[in-house]
Amino acid sequence: MKEFSVKFILPDGFLIFKRPVIKTATVAKGTDLLTAATKAGVILNATCGGDGLCGKCKVVVNKKTVPACETLVESDLEVRVPKGSLEVRIKSSLSAEEFTKGIVLKRENAYKHSPMVRKIYLKLPELTANDNASDLDRLYRELAGKIDGVHISAKFASVKFLSGTLRDSDFQVTVTLGLKDGHFEIISVEPGDTTKASYGFAFDIGTTTVAGQLVDLNTREILGTRIAFNKQAAYGSDVITRIIFASVPEGLEKAHKAVVSNMNEMIGDLIKAYKVNLADVYAIACAGNMTMMHLLLKVDPSAIRKPPYLPATTAFPTIHSSEVEIEANPKGLISFLPGVSTYVGGDIVAGILACGIFETDELSLLIDIGTNGELVLGNKEWMIGAAASAGPAFEGSGLSCGMKAVKGAVQKVRIDEDLSVHCDVIGNGKPSGVCGSGYIDLLCQMLKRGIIDKSGKINKDTKSGRIRLGETRPEFVVAFKSESGAGKDVVINEDDIENIKRSKGAIYSAVIALLAKVEKDIKDVKKIYIAGGFGNYLNIENAICIGLLPDVERGRYEFVGNSSLAGARMSLLSTEALEKTGDIAKNITYIDLSAEPAYMDEYIASLFFPHTNLWRFPSVR
Amino acid sequence: MKEFSVKFILPDGFLIFKRPVIKTATVAKGTDLLTAATKAGVILNATCGGDGLCGKCKVVVNKKTVPACETLVESDLEVRVPKGSLEVRIKSSLSAEEFTKGIVLKRENAYKHSPMVRKIYLKLPELTANDNASDLDRLYRELAGKIDGVHISAKFASVKFLSGTLRDSDFQVTVTLGLKDGHFEIISVEPGDTTKASYGFAFDIGTTTVAGQLVDLNTREILGTRIAFNKQAAYGSDVITRIIFASVPEGLEKAHKAVVSNMNEMIGDLIKAYKVNLADVYAIACAGNMTMMHLLLKVDPSAIRKPPYLPATTAFPTIHSSEVEIEANPKGLISFLPGVSTYVGGDIVAGILACGIFETDELSLLIDIGTNGELVLGNKEWMIGAAASAGPAFEGSGLSCGMKAVKGAVQKVRIDEDLSVHCDVIGNGKPSGVCGSGYIDLLCQMLKRGIIDKSGKINKDTKSGRIRLGETRPEFVVAFKSESGAGKDVVINEDDIENIKRSKGAIYSAVIALLAKVEKDIKDVKKIYIAGGFGNYLNIENAICIGLLPDVERGRYEFVGNSSLAGARMSLLSTEALEKTGDIAKNITYIDLSAEPAYMDEYIASLFFPHTNLWRFPSVR
Repeated sequence: MKEFSVKFILPDGFLIFKRPVIKTATVAKGTDLLTAATKAGVILNATCGGDGLCGKCKVVVNKKTVPACETLVESDLEVRVPKGSLEVRIKSSLSAEEFTKGIVLKRENAYKHSPMVRKIYLKLPELTANDNASDLDRLYRELAGKIDGVHISAKFASVKFLSGTLRDSDFQVTVTLGLKDGHFEIISVEPGDTTKASYGFAFDIGTTTVAGQLVDLNTREILGTRIAFNKQAAYGSDVITRIIFASVPEGLEKAHKAVVSNMNEMIGDLIKAYKVNLADVYAIACAGNMTMMHLLLKVDPSAIRKPPYLPATTAFPTIHSSEVEIEANPKGLISFLPGVSTYVGGDIVAGILACGIFETDELSLLIDIGTNGELVLGNKEWMIGAAASAGPAFEGSGLSCGMKAVKGAVQKVRIDEDLSVHCDVIGNGKPSGVCGSGYIDLLCQMLKRGIIDKSGKINKDTKSGRIRLGETRPEFVVAFKSESGAGKDVVINEDDIENIKRSKGAIYSAVIALLAKVEKDIKDVKKIYIAGGFGNYLNIENAICIGLLPDVERGRYEFVGNSSLAGARMSLLSTEALEKTGDIAKNITYIDLSAEPAYMDEYIASLFFPHTNLWRFPSVR
Repeated sequence: MKEFSVKFILPDGFLIFKRPVIKTATVAKGTDLLTAATKAGVILNATCGGDGLCGKCKVVVNKKTVPACETLVESDLEVRVPKGSLEVRIKSSLSAEEFTKGIVLKRENAYKHSPMVRKIYLKLPELTANDNASDLDRLYRELAGKIDGVHISAKFASVKFLSGTLRDSDFQVTVTLGLKDGHFEIISVEPGDTTKASYGFAFDIGTTTVAGQLVDLNTREILGTRIAFNKQAAYGSDVITRIIFASVPEGLEKAHKAVVSNMNEMIGDLIKAYKVNLADVYAIACAGNMTMMHLLLKVDPSAIRKPPYLPATTAFPTIHSSEVEIEANPKGLISFLPGVSTYVGGDIVAGILACGIFETDELSLLIDIGTNGELVLGNKEWMIGAAASAGPAFEGSGLSCGMKAVKGAVQKVRIDEDLSVHCDVIGNGKPSGVCGSGYIDLLCQMLKRGIIDKSGKINKDTKSGRIRLGETRPEFVVAFKSESGAGKDVVINEDDIENIKRSKGAIYSAVIALLAKVEKDIKDVKKIYIAGGFGNYLNIENAICIGLLPDVERGRYEFVGNSSLAGARMSLLSTEALEKTGDIAKNITYIDLSAEPAYMDEYIASLFFPHTNLWRFPSVR
């Protein structure tokens, strides 16, 4: 049978990384366009069900508007989909399966396998006339032998049909218990043995990026991961504009709904991909910065931006997922990692849990490079934390060709002597843009090849077609349009470089100022954990080369990727770990760097590649 | 005509908030004190009907004891009423506002005044730059000094606008705390000092009747009471038919909504009458039988009617009122008194709390006569409980002219030698029907006048227009259509009598069988508490006369009215009392009378007025 290819070009609102989204399906001759669209994953409005009555599935073929349900495919076609005809938004999520599982840390299973929700299969003894304990008491009696010394309670919703369930299942049931307010609560009672079906999600809610992960609560296996831009970006790119937006109830509601929609899309996407029932998703653990937690939980964040910059709360109790409109088992639980202060949130506490700084004798440092840069220095005796206004450059945001570490992003760069550029692209396709780790490599290589000088200016005397004056400023071409997947040249310009320089300077100077605060030297730090949304890759050597990281023995560094997500995952899988997050948050003392006189001087000195004081970078010099 | 004012000072048991209850009437010179007392709403014993024969209406005037029916008012008077002379206690009723506050028990304030919801006014210290505790932590810090050793948590909904509330109110706020799951939870944070506005409701959810009471949580004052028929009656008059109805989800939903509607109407009515804001109603305590609790909470009750007759649960945790659609402050709490077993519910546990049986050395008995009859026998060492299928006759249900103790009900009856009938009608209007206490009087008087024989058959030979053959069976006319408010004759027929005989027989024989179970005699019982919805009045003498209650020294009896409502109210006002209900429920052993061989024999023997074995009723004989 003859087959044709149909390309659906989605409207502007569906740009992903500034490229229009194109979805393609190969269909048999004579297939209608509505069917073809569905096959391509494009869900068109069709309230009449494709009967040609509602007229809502209009598409544009050869500049003519036609109803998709009544137009048959007779050749290869390009179909433009107007915005109004689309029923569903296309998720901007990570595509390449090889990146979906995230970094698994050495400490992954450091704590007892004890998920916040657990299932227990029970065979209750037969009913007898002289035992008049209620059905629930009989359940408690049986559970008492299985879960020691824990007070168990029941939500009404969970025992509504208890009597029927017990009798219909011959008193052989699976009880799902969740830890909430310090005791186990019955989440559900199901007939038969369903212990195998128990899933959870870990989330890292960042200002720019949201990451979610489906985990099998029994095996601790990470099934899949999705990352997406935080939809709140529509209401402001940084926390301050979002707080202003959310300082009125309607704004708060919108900001809340935006991130909930991020989370629900990821849940929906992953359970579909891994054939998990939504009702079997019982537990969620979330880490995020303080503002993100306020917005997710619809807590007025307005005091955060008024002196003395206080959050409404730093700790959030475990609640039912339905209370925040998260689509999982509505009686399932969602817990939130506690934060330290306005600028050191639950994401950093999660990172500390993941790296284990609070359990080691060695002086250690965690540097989390996200939309902001946060640092924690310490050991099991003490910890201090601080924040640096680094901006989202290393998340690929705010740069002319920046993108997140997803398919199509340049994550590694080598520049030859002849200035030819070799890119390592996530997913092995054509480069569409550059992610954080790619920019670090790029700048380092540009410095080495003399394309830029120490201040970040592009050397216009260099003879290469890649160096040119862009619209308003000099730029370097990483990939020409012909090699690119973006339909245009992929470039880095002087504004981008300035942007990255400030980011790296903010982080480096914060490290130095924080050490100075406790009269320590970087040499005293035995272990440096680097976290952030760089993808699964960060070239430490190159990060030192550009002056982002201090120039110490490379063996002291460990790249831990999204440690916030890792900490959330560990909390999901171990109530012991979740409990420790409370201790961690209490034990970190927040240092306000803007009140430290040394900080500004350090910052100014760091606005060079690698630094004004080259003696600090002996191996780079 | 010359008029005088007569003040009746009621005895100790009728103290309201430690003040004696005083009732006043203005009467014409020469009026007898019995009539004056009735006018004042003080119902004195006068089994002879004021003929100066029984000597039971004794009162004290100028330190001299005189019969009220023979003492005439010649001046303004103060009359002390001894306890033994009172026939009626103040009780909740729909009609007369003076009766709406219910019986206040001696033990009313036996437990520490500690409502399950409490308000605390806080003035927080000023913000300083070097204190970066979150707003919530600042609140906790301040509360720690006010509420000792209690873990406090916050619902998100309660702290959503915390930051704004604190700043708008100059950090002077009232925090409302509710005890739930063993710790205090923040229910609301309001600007300024609102501690004065704090209200709660106590409910007794009976199969036939629902009673609700508005209480000021600060002063412990009962503001008002309402009673109504349980709207579930539309789905069956007894628990079995309701369970069958509610054994499918739609039926359960309907039964739930019916009783919730009862409760919401009472709340709406009372807050309007007493000018209370709905948002200031923070706490509700409910007592009811096991089936009523299942239906209220939408828990499938179907196992209750299948052997071995188990409830889904006997204990229900405190939840938010909005979780059961009760219209109060949605973050406010609703607690439920726990039950013992299918047939001994939270209403009986409430009664035990109210009467204090579990705290006394003396062997005591509680008989609660509602739709069923329930009994608890014991003391502080042990308690046993049982149920008797008495049916709702004493609630006025299932009888040809039966009605609840509301306006228009005959609550007291005297029949003269010439068979003329004198009715005391609630609200002083025309009789519309007869309530429980009226039937007791009526049967007693009919026995005395020979209108019925010991088996309950109407003596058709008696010459009176009141005795006739009704449609199918003999009947006695209590009030002819012309005297009646019902638009028809108010009658009692042989079926009614048979019905009441079975009811009273079921209760009496249960008392005897329960005593036999522990090898005790009724003489060993030092205190007998009679509870039930008879209205404002129960003539113990007449109840013994018909064989409903055992023939013991009258001083051992105490009529406690709706003790379920009283216990709910005590639990509302004292977390100590609420906690004790758990202990009470645990310490009552349920006895299945139907498994006791003695019970059926006793029942058969009790199907006479007063009893087959007359030696058991020496004072009646």
